[in-house]
Amino acid sequence: MKLATIDNGTRDGELVVVSDDLCRAVSAKAIAPNLLTVMEDWDSHEMALRDLAYQLHEGDAEDAFSFDQSHTLSPLPRSFQWIDGSCFKNHLRLMALATGRDPGIEMNSPFPLMYQGMSDDFYRPQGEIALPREEDQIDFEGEIGVVLSEVPMGTKAEDAEQYIKLVLLINDVSCRAFVKREITVGFGWMNAKPSTAFSPVAVTPDTLGDHWREGKLHLPLNVTWNGELFGRPNGSEMSFSFPELIEHAAHTRKLAAGTLFGSGTVSNKAYREVGSACIAERRSIENIEEGGAKTEFMKFGDRVRMEMFDGDGQSIFGAIDQTIARYKPV
Amino acid sequence: MKLATIDNGTRDGELVVVSDDLCRAVSAKAIAPNLLTVMEDWDSHEMALRDLAYQLHEGDAEDAFSFDQSHTLSPLPRSFQWIDGSCFKNHLRLMALATGRDPGIEMNSPFPLMYQGMSDDFYRPQGEIALPREEDQIDFEGEIGVVLSEVPMGTKAEDAEQYIKLVLLINDVSCRAFVKREITVGFGWMNAKPSTAFSPVAVTPDTLGDHWREGKLHLPLNVTWNGELFGRPNGSEMSFSFPELIEHAAHTRKLAAGTLFGSGTVSNKAYREVGSACIAERRSIENIEEGGAKTEFMKFGDRVRMEMFDGDGQSIFGAIDQTIARYKPV
Repeated sequence: MKLATIDNGTRDGELVVVSDDLCRAVSAKAIAPNLLTVMEDWDSHEMALRDLAYQLHEGDAEDAFSFDQSHTLSPLPRSFQWIDGSCFKNHLRLMALATGRDPGIEMNSPFPLMYQGMSDDFYRPQGEIALPREEDQIDFEGEIGVVLSEVPMGTKAEDAEQYIKLVLLINDVSCRAFVKREITVGFGWMNAKPSTAFSPVAVTPDTLGDHWREGKLHLPLNVTWNGELFGRPNGSEMSFSFPELIEHAAHTRKLAAGTLFGSGTVSNKAYREVGSACIAERRSIENIEEGGAKTEFMKFGDRVRMEMFDGDGQSIFGAIDQTIARYKPV
Repeated sequence: MKLATIDNGTRDGELVVVSDDLCRAVSAKAIAPNLLTVMEDWDSHEMALRDLAYQLHEGDAEDAFSFDQSHTLSPLPRSFQWIDGSCFKNHLRLMALATGRDPGIEMNSPFPLMYQGMSDDFYRPQGEIALPREEDQIDFEGEIGVVLSEVPMGTKAEDAEQYIKLVLLINDVSCRAFVKREITVGFGWMNAKPSTAFSPVAVTPDTLGDHWREGKLHLPLNVTWNGELFGRPNGSEMSFSFPELIEHAAHTRKLAAGTLFGSGTVSNKAYREVGSACIAERRSIENIEEGGAKTEFMKFGDRVRMEMFDGDGQSIFGAIDQTIARYKPV
């Protein structure tokens, strides 16, 4: 089952069920006002939503319409929690080396790294990323994410998969100029992590077939920058699974329904063949292998696109497709 | 004007207006379903709420009832954002010295320190703090906080005071055993910061008279632990004001209506006279002055109480009054 949220003028948008080929959609407003409501009581809503998806598939859904990704909001336009992991050791190693930190601290951590992100306002999947200054070193970060139903405090990884209701893609927009200052203080990201974008469509794990296994998504994430392929690293090299991320976060607290969890920048050991999912990693590679970074960060007007395809070449989540713009105070 | 939220069985509770002496209250449900709704359109709701407060003061409010702090939820039982500063340099200095870090990094920072906290589920002001293990080194942290209406990206400190709609007290519960590991990684707090508690009552800044000036609250915060006074440091020594905190956080993003902002642990240079607002700071002082920490962290059954009084001895915000309990999985 595939779900999306379209702009109906309300803060949380209108939930729609989307066909597997992303061509058609039908409003789910008779079932729930928005996706956050569904997440808060997934079990009560799931069958009605799956029934609607079946009707859409069979061509029996009344009021079905052409699905336009450019009209979507984030599946959750805002949520009460967004936690982002950093679970690709190849990425951690390259980033640490390039910023002069000891890669051992992060590489050998028995715990997954993660940060508490801002969740009060997410970008649209397709549209502008408005930021004040190019000098803040604007970067994209291609990631895989999940949406959770409520997770009780103390949940262990072996019991956590049941709370993963939806899977999606993420562009964890970053302002790299602030990274060194903020990681040195150690309180986490504030200026370095503005809002975040999620793919137009979120899907239930069963939709992914064998590509979803061991709590990871085993498919390449295609990232293009200004129309050129930048990287297509595979999600299979996550060093901690999503259930392991959940266990770590839930040690001293419950996780509310609608919590979004990210994998961190997808990155592979074979980075020479598959490229990277963020500019900072490519710059780190240039630093290490060529003695200096030459790729510059994003400029106003630059465009980034992230998409993932199944074995038949079908886009699974639709495309994150964003253009950097100069923020204009209202 | 003083506001509180009582438990009516809904996730966001029912908004009530409270008398200045905290003895009486009246439901505001005819004005708005809850405080989050009010924050999202403060200007449309403020006059009706102030009118209701006046009726309560004059004894004219129909259906007024005795206000019982023990029945309150957090003024915002959950919110889309919670950011906590660390703005008392005396606290930063003592904590850095005791953990072997260079106090200069934080003491001389031109930027206020702050972390993104979890906002999906706040403790009740009066009740249990359920946590899994005493070995996680459970601590309280007495703070002052504010609640904001929507702040546009790029807002400067000189324009930020207008967005501060409410003031309250905070117990930023901490698990100190995780602090060193998490600050070393630098991604911010996850296990070290479980949920947070806010005072039963939030008040508009005008209620505070001259005690609220320059974006700071100039009153002592009384903290008792198991019935004994632990500290009464004054909020006046904040090294950055709340408007300065807002400017820093809003550099690359807007702050949604209902954002909660904390001051960090209240702490004074005259700590020998006024004591501390958290155990970790007292332990740091013991380490520095007596060669070793002797005060232990909280045990199951321990009780912490935080309250602030005006010049007439009237409790302004009611009391945060919590007991540590062992978390029992459901």
